[in-house]
Amino acid sequence: MAERLVVIGGDATGMSAASQARRLKKPGELEIVAFERGHFASYSACGIPYWVGGTVDGPDDLIARTPEQHRERDIGLRMRTEVTELDLDRGRVRTRDLDGGGTETWTGYDKLVIATGARPLRPPLPGIDAPGVHGVQTLDDGQALLDTLRATEGTKAVVVGAGYIGVEMAEALVTRGYDVTVLDRGAQPMSTLDPDMGELVHEAMCGMGIETVRGAAVTGVRTDDSGRACAVTTEDDGEFPADIVVLGLGVRPETTLAEQAGLPLGDAGGLLTDLSMRVRGQDAVWAGGDCVEVLDLVLGRTRHIALGTHANKHGQIIGSNVAGDYATFPGVVGTAVSKVCDLEIARTGLLEEQAKSVGLQYVTVTIDSTSRAGYYPNARPMRVKMMAERRTGRLLGVQIVGREGAGKRVDVAAVALTARLTVEEMTALDLGYAPPFSPVWDPVLVAARKAAAAVRKAAG
Amino acid sequence: MAERLVVIGGDATGMSAASQARRLKKPGELEIVAFERGHFASYSACGIPYWVGGTVDGPDDLIARTPEQHRERDIGLRMRTEVTELDLDRGRVRTRDLDGGGTETWTGYDKLVIATGARPLRPPLPGIDAPGVHGVQTLDDGQALLDTLRATEGTKAVVVGAGYIGVEMAEALVTRGYDVTVLDRGAQPMSTLDPDMGELVHEAMCGMGIETVRGAAVTGVRTDDSGRACAVTTEDDGEFPADIVVLGLGVRPETTLAEQAGLPLGDAGGLLTDLSMRVRGQDAVWAGGDCVEVLDLVLGRTRHIALGTHANKHGQIIGSNVAGDYATFPGVVGTAVSKVCDLEIARTGLLEEQAKSVGLQYVTVTIDSTSRAGYYPNARPMRVKMMAERRTGRLLGVQIVGREGAGKRVDVAAVALTARLTVEEMTALDLGYAPPFSPVWDPVLVAARKAAAAVRKAAG
Repeated sequence: MAERLVVIGGDATGMSAASQARRLKKPGELEIVAFERGHFASYSACGIPYWVGGTVDGPDDLIARTPEQHRERDIGLRMRTEVTELDLDRGRVRTRDLDGGGTETWTGYDKLVIATGARPLRPPLPGIDAPGVHGVQTLDDGQALLDTLRATEGTKAVVVGAGYIGVEMAEALVTRGYDVTVLDRGAQPMSTLDPDMGELVHEAMCGMGIETVRGAAVTGVRTDDSGRACAVTTEDDGEFPADIVVLGLGVRPETTLAEQAGLPLGDAGGLLTDLSMRVRGQDAVWAGGDCVEVLDLVLGRTRHIALGTHANKHGQIIGSNVAGDYATFPGVVGTAVSKVCDLEIARTGLLEEQAKSVGLQYVTVTIDSTSRAGYYPNARPMRVKMMAERRTGRLLGVQIVGREGAGKRVDVAAVALTARLTVEEMTALDLGYAPPFSPVWDPVLVAARKAAAAVRKAAG
Repeated sequence: MAERLVVIGGDATGMSAASQARRLKKPGELEIVAFERGHFASYSACGIPYWVGGTVDGPDDLIARTPEQHRERDIGLRMRTEVTELDLDRGRVRTRDLDGGGTETWTGYDKLVIATGARPLRPPLPGIDAPGVHGVQTLDDGQALLDTLRATEGTKAVVVGAGYIGVEMAEALVTRGYDVTVLDRGAQPMSTLDPDMGELVHEAMCGMGIETVRGAAVTGVRTDDSGRACAVTTEDDGEFPADIVVLGLGVRPETTLAEQAGLPLGDAGGLLTDLSMRVRGQDAVWAGGDCVEVLDLVLGRTRHIALGTHANKHGQIIGSNVAGDYATFPGVVGTAVSKVCDLEIARTGLLEEQAKSVGLQYVTVTIDSTSRAGYYPNARPMRVKMMAERRTGRLLGVQIVGREGAGKRVDVAAVALTARLTVEEMTALDLGYAPPFSPVWDPVLVAARKAAAAVRKAAG
């Protein structure tokens, strides 16, 4: 009889794993069943802000493969079916049919993939669950938010949190004509950047007419007579009227099932796996995507990083291993890139705080350059901050904030981090040069030269 | 008494070397004299096609630093002064004042930098030196070409050669309203690419209305009664009317002086240096830029690569070493990027022919992808060809042809080549992902996955 693979979660990791396993194993060898509690599968969650902002039509555009297409490939994908319990001892999962009257069923598995993703952080504050308060994690979330926007004769939006999702959503709502206020607990937006670089994002947000309240401690959501959200309150009696509230406080791993089943979780609440993405201590259970922690190769610790590109890699690797082939995920170096308020924002490696937290001593340098030769049309400014380890000169991190042509330059640093290059070695990198692409010294090389000099000076 | 540094050639390498030496040594310690035979110094030769095409105003825009600015920094730059002889035994150079009646003078040196650049290839054919036939290497060349264009009531241009300069110039002349014919000795333009990738450039040239004659063996330039070029002739009685002829046959190192002085030259005619850019066998003579050969780290041999970014690095390194500091140039991996006919064209590492020439066995794969997530506006197609060594799976080369957002992706491969990563290792690279920047699998990762599979298959 065929083995049965059960997949919990029908998005990037789950369906990539199912698809890869199906490529390697015929239906007669491996039965594949996948459960998805939402209305959508195999979609790009990263595209939701662009859908809300109107840059992308969606939601169909955001769907990589429909449930029918999966079924045509002999993947038994069951939509609107929630897994409510995980029975590791007997190798089975209990599911509830969300649309069909809540019927509960047990399904046995030989191999299990947990791909339950993440959920938006929603602090336990008064009114936080009121209608009109939206997280933005799934296509269902995006659809609900758009439904609210269409049903509401509103002009005022409040975004709580200024991480990249918060800033992307603020921009999307400005694009739709809303007056947007961002309530930011920190002093600068984008805590994925050092404060000095985050300040550039703040300036761009101001330039787009986004009002930012810094150091804002949200105390609750006030509701109107109908129970709908109408304002967000903060300490010191702040009150910010809102026709719609968007939560951009980040996400946490969705590991309720895994925790109940006693599977190992890390400090950030994500499942812990080995290099083959198998859950630690388990023979037949794999996990990946937004519900796991990944090894940060620069930090030397696991972290929770919710990112579609990791989720897809995990799915591919899990599918190979489930099917008896071999693949591993060595870890990440902390690369992220986003485009908000006409800025391209990128980082890889460590922030200063992260480096300190693991005992690394470092030097940093910051340089200003341009995306193209200065004389070439549309040369745009960019700022590059580079961090290198004291003594060794090993690259520890790069942050870039600029306009068009800035963001993907971070990839050079991502590969250099992977290869553990020193900034001195980086000064000799043979990067592509022609006037439409770069000044004769690429901005990354300029930063590397300055960083190498700083390392020497710190050593001297 | 101060030592004297003499620099031959006032462009990228020469003036970078002079500037860096001046940063490290005061005038009382080191006197610096630089000789430039042309009318311009410290300019971006790479910008000339954009100047001719009208994208850049120039020539002033192309000048990084004027002779006066150099002199203000105590660098004795003498323009229009040609070095005519190099006397290594007595440590002196003979110069001729080109504008001042040709006066010849000897100048002694303690340290010498040879930065004589390259000259356009000009095969010894009838009429090749006639007025109206132009090379494009120096700002003086660019000025002469523009003078011809302005003085000529012409509509027909012939470009001889389809290297990147030839193709850039063809595009520039089309932009100026000329009917352009490119006479290409090869079967595909851009011999810096494999033929299958070069074919994409040919298609784009056709799309711009550039006529390309493949396999064209030029036999000479026909002149009119006034002695001006009026047509280019080829074997098989081909004759191509031309109001202007541009030579895009590539360049060769300008090493006449060095050769006369008995300095060591490589197979490609460039000066040979050690890792500190000192001429082999010499204590007090350095050389860099377009007149030297560089070590290709992938090929394992020296090559001649005329590229502004190398020239600037060499200058920086030479300046440091001349002044008693320390810097080295470890070599290149063969990266080049250009923008022609609306295409971004990039390569790094080896072509198939190059790999064969040094005995490497390899697999290649080619993939098509896009610059952004498929659903994001302005996602543009790109093709990536990747080569990996048989057995080891080590990356050997990448070629990319695409539209906006394609070219600089080659930098990821350039760093991977430097770090000697395998394509299997590259599949796990943590490259920046967000919908405006990349599909969830970056095109380079897609190519790496396919290349890794090809390596495994070739091993099996």
